[in-house]
Amino acid sequence: MVKINENYQKLQGSYLFSTIAKKVGAYAEANPDRKIIRLGIGDVTRPLTPTIIKTLHNAVDEMADEKTFRGYAPDLGYDFLRKAVCDNDYRARGCAIEEDEIFISDGAKPDSGNIQEIFGNDNRIAVCDPVYPVYVDSNVMAGRAGDYVESTGRYSDILYLPCSAGNNFAPELPESECGLIYLCFPNNPTGMAITKDELQKWVDYANEHGSVIIFDAAYEAYISEENVPHSIYECDGAKTCAIELHSFSKNAGFTGLRLGYAVVPKELVRGGVSLNSLWARRHATKYNGAPYIVQRAGEAVYSPEGKKEIRGLVDFYMENASYILSGLKKAGYTVFGGVNSPYIWLATPDNMSSWDFFDHLLEDANVVGTPGVGFGSCGEGYFRLTAFGSHENTKEAVDRICRL
Amino acid sequence: MVKINENYQKLQGSYLFSTIAKKVGAYAEANPDRKIIRLGIGDVTRPLTPTIIKTLHNAVDEMADEKTFRGYAPDLGYDFLRKAVCDNDYRARGCAIEEDEIFISDGAKPDSGNIQEIFGNDNRIAVCDPVYPVYVDSNVMAGRAGDYVESTGRYSDILYLPCSAGNNFAPELPESECGLIYLCFPNNPTGMAITKDELQKWVDYANEHGSVIIFDAAYEAYISEENVPHSIYECDGAKTCAIELHSFSKNAGFTGLRLGYAVVPKELVRGGVSLNSLWARRHATKYNGAPYIVQRAGEAVYSPEGKKEIRGLVDFYMENASYILSGLKKAGYTVFGGVNSPYIWLATPDNMSSWDFFDHLLEDANVVGTPGVGFGSCGEGYFRLTAFGSHENTKEAVDRICRL
Repeated sequence: MVKINENYQKLQGSYLFSTIAKKVGAYAEANPDRKIIRLGIGDVTRPLTPTIIKTLHNAVDEMADEKTFRGYAPDLGYDFLRKAVCDNDYRARGCAIEEDEIFISDGAKPDSGNIQEIFGNDNRIAVCDPVYPVYVDSNVMAGRAGDYVESTGRYSDILYLPCSAGNNFAPELPESECGLIYLCFPNNPTGMAITKDELQKWVDYANEHGSVIIFDAAYEAYISEENVPHSIYECDGAKTCAIELHSFSKNAGFTGLRLGYAVVPKELVRGGVSLNSLWARRHATKYNGAPYIVQRAGEAVYSPEGKKEIRGLVDFYMENASYILSGLKKAGYTVFGGVNSPYIWLATPDNMSSWDFFDHLLEDANVVGTPGVGFGSCGEGYFRLTAFGSHENTKEAVDRICRL
Repeated sequence: MVKINENYQKLQGSYLFSTIAKKVGAYAEANPDRKIIRLGIGDVTRPLTPTIIKTLHNAVDEMADEKTFRGYAPDLGYDFLRKAVCDNDYRARGCAIEEDEIFISDGAKPDSGNIQEIFGNDNRIAVCDPVYPVYVDSNVMAGRAGDYVESTGRYSDILYLPCSAGNNFAPELPESECGLIYLCFPNNPTGMAITKDELQKWVDYANEHGSVIIFDAAYEAYISEENVPHSIYECDGAKTCAIELHSFSKNAGFTGLRLGYAVVPKELVRGGVSLNSLWARRHATKYNGAPYIVQRAGEAVYSPEGKKEIRGLVDFYMENASYILSGLKKAGYTVFGGVNSPYIWLATPDNMSSWDFFDHLLEDANVVGTPGVGFGSCGEGYFRLTAFGSHENTKEAVDRICRL
């Protein structure tokens, strides 16, 4: 008799966004006349920009011609894209990352779910609380999380790093040993960033303890303040302790196109083994490359026109973020994020629970957001709104919330 | 100190095709004047067909317009594609598979590497020998394979099912218990198929023992003979014991576009748990959907024009297969496969080892094939050629081999 992976039985409910989709679906069905505005899932809404579209068409045409047709992509990504990433996201910022340290993938979500596979199952992992659920759930599936404890809403073997208004949503260094540390800054869900000096402390900690930091930089393009690092490799010594994950979803609008990359420096060695070689092996065995046409689109993101257009997308969403921030502040809400990030994190009013506030907003303002507690127990009493709507919808949603 | 996944240390050498690529690269560099013909990797060479290209362009245009732009795809695939798959690949063949049993993915390689994750680490797995390396390597990484035994070229905890000329490359039922059974028919690498009656025996065995069959049907489109099953669900009772994997790579030429699907029937339950729900959870947590434009291209494969064009692609490659088969036979080689599959499996002459024959072919005919032993110890003394070249190159390669 085959045995299933019993760790899956420890997962709690279904994945956060599926639950929200079901709730919203039920409400919409029962109230077909209401116009629901979705500021919940972090999905972009602006179309792909002209340079990306043109590049996609060109690449599609290449696939139509025997002479330019492309079959299997190189396991780790096309050289043209690895070079563009390296030149623009690293060398231009003074980070000494090389092409063969870049691994092209179909997005930061798969990468952040899969990266734990190259580590042993007996590692203790540390995550911020609140946290992007994929870090936790992928480790639950692998058996690293221990048991779910109903009373705390946490897994017994995970080290949670509380992030709240009290510490300005910047976690303190762990007091007990942990092997793998997930950090995401600018943060999903809180929208808060940390300074280079603060991140340096984590790099020093990891190097001292032999830990590895998984640094999720998916929201890097939204950084507007000085002294907020765009890459962990801006910190001294990060190449010996950190893996960095990037996405083309939030800057260039590739959520439906799927492209991302991981940086695994060759200097990152544990137990005498290069993690770069482990990740390369994992890619070669369990993955088969991102589509050629999508990798060409990724390259176009770094062209002069592409950069200008992508800047326009980010600015568009950040205009929404400003509107949400200032509107909610004016209405008396306590709000965070929204300056270096498309996420606004608000304290629920009147000690409402996150899910009560979700229902309240859905039913009384027909606005969908994400309950903070869905991201961890420290998210209880908070609520996430995203800046990815249209100007019109965002404005209307904020106005509706302010009228509540 | 973080611990790495020590199972990776048990993997042998690098992935077969990477090794071949390095050998060929070195030869090409040392002999820049030679025209090397590659009949090694199973990568297609014909361009995408007009209907697919047109569909891709249309879908790209949708991504350029706010009103038709698509962000995150549904976790498990767009309904339009799940329906097209269901109608054409199952209902049309009398197999009662439903849309919510179809999971769209970025290809059969990732699916066949990832599917083991929903099973416990204490399962014994069974694979054919020779075998597509991904089944074995993904289980080595998960810790199910035991230790590599140099003298046998096998892992201690895997049950190998020998396939040779003696049993017409159809494995015998296992004599000892195994939980997870990987079967691929038409087979990669041998190119041999099994009849529906033979496959029914496996289904009966799995149902009797509570095993689960992972049935890789990537080469289904190449079946030309009657009584060779296109799907395992043509067998009675397969829905309670089998997962089926499909690819758009080999029929529609999507190796560089990336699209596939897995079928996990809802009736497939083990330990009281539906494997359909486990795979859905895995998808939702660690994957983020295939690109919209690629899923539209997949849908177009099932249009009347698409079907005609795809048939043309398969016929094109099968013309090569026939040429290789008859040419090598005439030259005195003992050959298998090539009738229901684009793979030709030949016995190396004069008791040469597979790698010696590889070197011989590379150096003396400038033809690249795949050493049989790269697929398992029972592949020693065999060699794989693929029908995916151009007519001209295939003809030239065969003629060169015949002149040796």
